[in-house]
Amino acid sequence: MTDFALNKTGGVASPSGFQSVAAKAGIKTSGEADMALVVSEQPAAAAGAFTSNEFAASSVRYNQEVLQNPDVRIRALFVNSGCANACTGRRGDKDTRSIAELVAEALEVERHEVLVCSTGRIGSFLPMSSIKKAVENVAGQLSKAHADSGLNAARAIMTTDTRPKSVALTLNLAGKTVTIGGMCKGAGMIAPQFKPVVPHATMLAFLTTDANVESSFLSECLEESLSESFNRITVDGDSSTNDSVIALANGCSATEQIDVSHPEAGMFKKGFSYVMQFLAEEIVRDGEGATRFVEVQVKEAASAADAKKCAHAVADSMLCKTAWFGGDPNWGRILAAAGCAGVRIEPGKTGIKFNGVPAVVNGIAAETKEEELRGAVEKAEIRVELTLGCGWEEYTAWTCDLSYDYVKINAEYHT
Amino acid sequence: MTDFALNKTGGVASPSGFQSVAAKAGIKTSGEADMALVVSEQPAAAAGAFTSNEFAASSVRYNQEVLQNPDVRIRALFVNSGCANACTGRRGDKDTRSIAELVAEALEVERHEVLVCSTGRIGSFLPMSSIKKAVENVAGQLSKAHADSGLNAARAIMTTDTRPKSVALTLNLAGKTVTIGGMCKGAGMIAPQFKPVVPHATMLAFLTTDANVESSFLSECLEESLSESFNRITVDGDSSTNDSVIALANGCSATEQIDVSHPEAGMFKKGFSYVMQFLAEEIVRDGEGATRFVEVQVKEAASAADAKKCAHAVADSMLCKTAWFGGDPNWGRILAAAGCAGVRIEPGKTGIKFNGVPAVVNGIAAETKEEELRGAVEKAEIRVELTLGCGWEEYTAWTCDLSYDYVKINAEYHT
Repeated sequence: MTDFALNKTGGVASPSGFQSVAAKAGIKTSGEADMALVVSEQPAAAAGAFTSNEFAASSVRYNQEVLQNPDVRIRALFVNSGCANACTGRRGDKDTRSIAELVAEALEVERHEVLVCSTGRIGSFLPMSSIKKAVENVAGQLSKAHADSGLNAARAIMTTDTRPKSVALTLNLAGKTVTIGGMCKGAGMIAPQFKPVVPHATMLAFLTTDANVESSFLSECLEESLSESFNRITVDGDSSTNDSVIALANGCSATEQIDVSHPEAGMFKKGFSYVMQFLAEEIVRDGEGATRFVEVQVKEAASAADAKKCAHAVADSMLCKTAWFGGDPNWGRILAAAGCAGVRIEPGKTGIKFNGVPAVVNGIAAETKEEELRGAVEKAEIRVELTLGCGWEEYTAWTCDLSYDYVKINAEYHT
Repeated sequence: MTDFALNKTGGVASPSGFQSVAAKAGIKTSGEADMALVVSEQPAAAAGAFTSNEFAASSVRYNQEVLQNPDVRIRALFVNSGCANACTGRRGDKDTRSIAELVAEALEVERHEVLVCSTGRIGSFLPMSSIKKAVENVAGQLSKAHADSGLNAARAIMTTDTRPKSVALTLNLAGKTVTIGGMCKGAGMIAPQFKPVVPHATMLAFLTTDANVESSFLSECLEESLSESFNRITVDGDSSTNDSVIALANGCSATEQIDVSHPEAGMFKKGFSYVMQFLAEEIVRDGEGATRFVEVQVKEAASAADAKKCAHAVADSMLCKTAWFGGDPNWGRILAAAGCAGVRIEPGKTGIKFNGVPAVVNGIAAETKEEELRGAVEKAEIRVELTLGCGWEEYTAWTCDLSYDYVKINAEYHT
């Protein structure tokens, strides 16, 4: 991290030429802020990755269409919480398009320069008249002068999140200071498995940067960093209809253009990936009802695919997750989950460590005292190292425990 | 059911020539009964289906070896709860074999006429000296005179089950009365996906019958009925190291031999399948923390595989399960789970009904009042009909809701 400076109160409005604003658009019945606009002074290069859910929300399909244009330039991003506008048929499609038009009109840009994202309950319609008023009202309030602008936007897009997730990072690139900002939301319906082009997840994440990069390079950065960020997280193994990651680059840092052949391309990628990882981790740490953050490291797998499959099988296991909630070093549940993952395992060579303390050696209980094992698991962060004894491939997944509060939030969350 | 007579207090000792006994073998720290013996007066034909978990318990591997012999004849079945004897290495293997020898000696049969099943915590060793004493003690107490014999055995094999699961059924076959008895255990780690020969599940189930059938026909009955019984259930999506279904047929009803070509073969299969279904459903109804029984029917799928994959995706979804617990007709979660199942769906043709009440028609909300929908879901039994609009294949899965008690049981169950 010596190359980067991290600003944990920064966000999408931190890079030069980006502004954001939050508003109450009457979508959430709680009366909280439920709408954010992110606006770029200059047309920005853009890249996106979206859910592969068959019931992709109208806004997802709309954004995919807009971003299909290789010369795409984006000026504004509208995000609302409280309503997913998914499974809403033609009326939902019309509403998404109307929002893009409203924003375009208010900001005096083109409709195809506006992206639209929604999150919240599936199957309800957006309250278009109050959204119209809110968009007209806030267009004049855009500002980055307000230090909390990015953080407020991050707060406005929350659903069951308990805290806004926002960050900014600066790095020196081609002799200039470049900033990458980001925000995301999501606490439940989290099990993204992003594919290169049409991924799925259960979260929204937005990155902004004043770097001067083309959409194609930005897409490359996005795709490459997905596998080490949103791709490796799970809260509940459920995927949503609205998951999206969108990156905008407006070039306002006035650096020379950074593309894949630029000597500092790797540096930009590293910074971009860092923000992606930071945001992904934030989602798991704020997972619905989460009391512990769990890193599942699978080692000595026969293939990369096996390592990943096995790590996600353990990370999604309800029995493993409840054991972690109970601070229980019940390694049998981990082996049981791994043993049914459909991957190659040498049972007699398997091992498990909890935060470095051996629980299983060569497939049977290690000679560690129960109280020492318990001590290793009764932490806010648990690193589970699972060794399969079949090869040299590794994979890491991030998950959280399964607590009473997960049930409470999801049995009582009707919006 | 006109063909069968069901006895809900019957069990594995109900068929002629079968006896059972329960005992306290000092395995459960609670001091409850934790061991059962099922014994056949005559050598019985046998069939089994077992977990495909890579960490299959020593007893699973032992039984598979015994049942590999096409001329296998079984006299006794030993079952213990409180300890899975899985992930216990060579010592575990030796213990399983010792138990078979102890039982054989006590009953004066051959070691290879004894099957051994264990369930409970993974990774602990069996208390062999107290098991030895218990086996010696109970060998003389075998009885079917005691009306509760089968039920007591069913009680002795429980782990987190709240009630014993036991049943017997009589039918007329080739002019004689034939009885099929059964018991099972399992409440968590339930997500069996039985393959024809080496399936996996998270339960133990035992069927006994006095019908005169060969092992090969018994295997056929077992395999065919799996897909409509244990194969379609899930409690938590987790699979175990010890799952087994074992059937024994001792021929004591003195019917002529029933094989696949016998005119009443279908009748026997039907009865056998009924007992399998009854026991499978019992497991879900007594699922850990379950407050509702949910039948997920997927219809109009493009293929049988799609129908099954989709039904299990919905039945295993933590968000669907918590919504059901909350009595919430949140159909968006069902579509979201189905939409990510990786199956063909025509979003615009999809439909959902809760206990016959339409929630979704053509992919969007039906015009049913929220309170009517809620009323349909606030039942102890929920039938979810999910129509994919792609073809004519169907599949039904049985699951339960996810409640606080599931978390409580699994965060606090350390034994």
